[in-house]
Amino acid sequence: MSKELGMTIKKAENFSEWYLELVKKTDLADYACIDGFIVFKPYAYAIWENIQKIVDSRFKEMGIENAYFPLLIPEHLLEKEASHFEGFTPEVAWVTQVGQSKLGERLAIRPTSETIIYDSYSKWIRSWRDLPLRLNLWNSVLRWEFKHAKPFLRTREFLWNEGHTVFATQKEAEKECAEILEMYDSFCKEYLALPGIKGRKTDKEKFAGAIYTEAIEFIMPDGKVIQGPDVHFDGQNFAKAFDIKFKDKNEKEQFVYQNTWALTTRMIGIMIANHSDNKGLILPPNIAPTQIVIIPIIMAENKKTVLNEAKKVKNKLKKFRVKLDDREQYSPGFKFNEWELKGIPIRLEIGPRDIENKQITVVRRDTSEKINVKITDLNKEISKLIKDIHKNLYERAEKFSNEHTKTVKTYDELKKYVIGNRIKACWCGSRECENKVKEETTAKISCIPLVQDKIFSKCVKCEKEAKHVVIFAKSY
Amino acid sequence: MSKELGMTIKKAENFSEWYLELVKKTDLADYACIDGFIVFKPYAYAIWENIQKIVDSRFKEMGIENAYFPLLIPEHLLEKEASHFEGFTPEVAWVTQVGQSKLGERLAIRPTSETIIYDSYSKWIRSWRDLPLRLNLWNSVLRWEFKHAKPFLRTREFLWNEGHTVFATQKEAEKECAEILEMYDSFCKEYLALPGIKGRKTDKEKFAGAIYTEAIEFIMPDGKVIQGPDVHFDGQNFAKAFDIKFKDKNEKEQFVYQNTWALTTRMIGIMIANHSDNKGLILPPNIAPTQIVIIPIIMAENKKTVLNEAKKVKNKLKKFRVKLDDREQYSPGFKFNEWELKGIPIRLEIGPRDIENKQITVVRRDTSEKINVKITDLNKEISKLIKDIHKNLYERAEKFSNEHTKTVKTYDELKKYVIGNRIKACWCGSRECENKVKEETTAKISCIPLVQDKIFSKCVKCEKEAKHVVIFAKSY
Repeated sequence: MSKELGMTIKKAENFSEWYLELVKKTDLADYACIDGFIVFKPYAYAIWENIQKIVDSRFKEMGIENAYFPLLIPEHLLEKEASHFEGFTPEVAWVTQVGQSKLGERLAIRPTSETIIYDSYSKWIRSWRDLPLRLNLWNSVLRWEFKHAKPFLRTREFLWNEGHTVFATQKEAEKECAEILEMYDSFCKEYLALPGIKGRKTDKEKFAGAIYTEAIEFIMPDGKVIQGPDVHFDGQNFAKAFDIKFKDKNEKEQFVYQNTWALTTRMIGIMIANHSDNKGLILPPNIAPTQIVIIPIIMAENKKTVLNEAKKVKNKLKKFRVKLDDREQYSPGFKFNEWELKGIPIRLEIGPRDIENKQITVVRRDTSEKINVKITDLNKEISKLIKDIHKNLYERAEKFSNEHTKTVKTYDELKKYVIGNRIKACWCGSRECENKVKEETTAKISCIPLVQDKIFSKCVKCEKEAKHVVIFAKSY
Repeated sequence: MSKELGMTIKKAENFSEWYLELVKKTDLADYACIDGFIVFKPYAYAIWENIQKIVDSRFKEMGIENAYFPLLIPEHLLEKEASHFEGFTPEVAWVTQVGQSKLGERLAIRPTSETIIYDSYSKWIRSWRDLPLRLNLWNSVLRWEFKHAKPFLRTREFLWNEGHTVFATQKEAEKECAEILEMYDSFCKEYLALPGIKGRKTDKEKFAGAIYTEAIEFIMPDGKVIQGPDVHFDGQNFAKAFDIKFKDKNEKEQFVYQNTWALTTRMIGIMIANHSDNKGLILPPNIAPTQIVIIPIIMAENKKTVLNEAKKVKNKLKKFRVKLDDREQYSPGFKFNEWELKGIPIRLEIGPRDIENKQITVVRRDTSEKINVKITDLNKEISKLIKDIHKNLYERAEKFSNEHTKTVKTYDELKKYVIGNRIKACWCGSRECENKVKEETTAKISCIPLVQDKIFSKCVKCEKEAKHVVIFAKSY
């Protein structure tokens, strides 16, 4: 492949530049004319559509319904819950004019929709019969961050789902939080081939307005961590600010309990960064828009036979997402490189010799392994291969995660390993130690893993008695 | 049904109030806290999801891909195409501040995305090999109209698809326009049971920036017309403003030809207004989120038997969208009314006598007709019934359309019939006559039907030679 079309930067040498080249050359996204905004080109959007389809069907199985709420939030609503307002206002884009007129009140473009939704909820919820109320939105939000933008990973506008649910009791709300986190986690494992750590955020790092936040944290190839899907148990914080009350079965008025949870287009970035290599993308087969590309090896004399056979093979593989690349202006070699760059999990090559032998040459993108498969076994073998590729990608990512998770006892060890690794260490629970570690190393507490190893008993910073095992890491 | 829950206003007596009551009592939408904005509640959003699913699959069959472009458009881009800017700026919401900072340039919330998209297209398109480029977006747009808002029909924010396609030749572009209009039309007929008139807009009424606009126009129960999906052939207007050029096969630089087309959430409003009645919604079965509701007629002594049978019936009907209403706190009568209000096309009642007779009572929402169907024939009969209901709704709407389309020769007739009807009449083609009719009657030229009846030869206004048969009507 020509230098202009193919990848030129090595992942191990310069992850950050490699990532930007990957996004650009595989035609996933482009920068938009406003700083910090990107265009989701069709290839990236098709991945997002697959993510939506699967996650949405899981929401529906859980009894959650979709809705749509306005893009704009009046300032007086946004400020109703104090910590929420403080958390988001520095990043809010404000509409102040329409046409030629100046508005009486500024309107925020949603950075998240709690406040506009809860204004409606306070009107809709009257009785225990109205609960639970479990709605989800698929939309985009704007957060005007001033950090350097990175496609998918950090942009001022991104796409996501935002779930906003209301319960009569704390128990039901917390049960849902755990179920949603579990669902997100199994989705990331089963479709994106990404192993994450489920953990609770510290109070310092939790969502503005929540009682607690739990999230799935992933490691990136540079050893930094990044937060994936999250769930927030909001308790009665918003209920009190927005006066969301119901009459219970005894006709007594009670404030509701609420959750919010989200999964964003950031997952596309985490996925491609973790699995891809120096030749380009590697997409996990369960999420790839195209799982299989068929490339007929055509010469002038056999064109019709080979193309016919290729079409027959495509028709046989109806249960997969298959593309037949029958473009005549490009050579098979060019096509191999192109689809390798684009990360199609499986390539099928069909040439005259394959036809004679009633077989097909099958090439895996993840290992470059080449095997011959009898046409009669094709469906069975492809099904197996898809499972194998998924498993291999998952295990590779897991191995990398484990190798770059260092368990340390001392602060010296923490400082030594924190570049390029995440650190598992003990913490006393004090904001003071959390702040000091951050000041001195730039590492934050990424999360308090839900599964707590029993390692030692002293805080890595102050050496007082530890409350939790936590993950310290530099982060996105 | 209690007055509080059921419909109280008659469609024929006060269409406008009936419509608002319908939207509210059937739980389709609610007003948001900002004037002119609505919340799409789950029932309406589920209808929109069905619309999206079907239209999107047709786009994909045609080779169109989805993408996502930013919400915001810098002012200098929006003003690049003069007539487009003029058309939209009075309705644009402007972002002027982020956080505490004032922006150097105002950013428009997209009223439509031509300008932000074509900025990218001008970078992406270089050669004939890059064409055609056919992208579609599913998003929301903002137009700050000052007319009175009506849920779905006219709101400041609405949801839609916007297609933006680029071709090397005028011929290809115009061919696509016709194909998309045809596709939208067949969708409206086959799923929404709505007969429309395909027509071209006059220059006065066309899209700001287009060479011509074609649309599907529908009639509403009050005899006014409303514009449905539309296609715009933009020629090279935007290409020249945005410098979108390609090298043809002879290495010569050429401007591209472009189309845009859209279908919006307004279709939900047109559909429910046309089909529903004084008892509530009537949803066409091909688009209804729930096609069939099963209501077990339960008494204490037969509860288990009847519920079991109802579940069995539900399992038999897997190819339909079925809801089993097994709530115990409500009586069958209450449920009948509720699902009638909600417009579920088919109701199945299962009671002990039905079980004895191995049959089910089936009730159509559109005609209230009640029939008994043998359980063994159920799938076949329901399939037939769904076709029948669709056909009946379509024919009813068509009959209404025809009865409220008056063909007139004279201006006196036009003035006489234009309240409560659309008028088919001849027009000389002059802007002057178009304007005069509007000033004197408030009726606009809704469209120049693509199928031109040969009726007479004189303009209804000036009595000079006519160029077209057109539809004059008051409109939404």
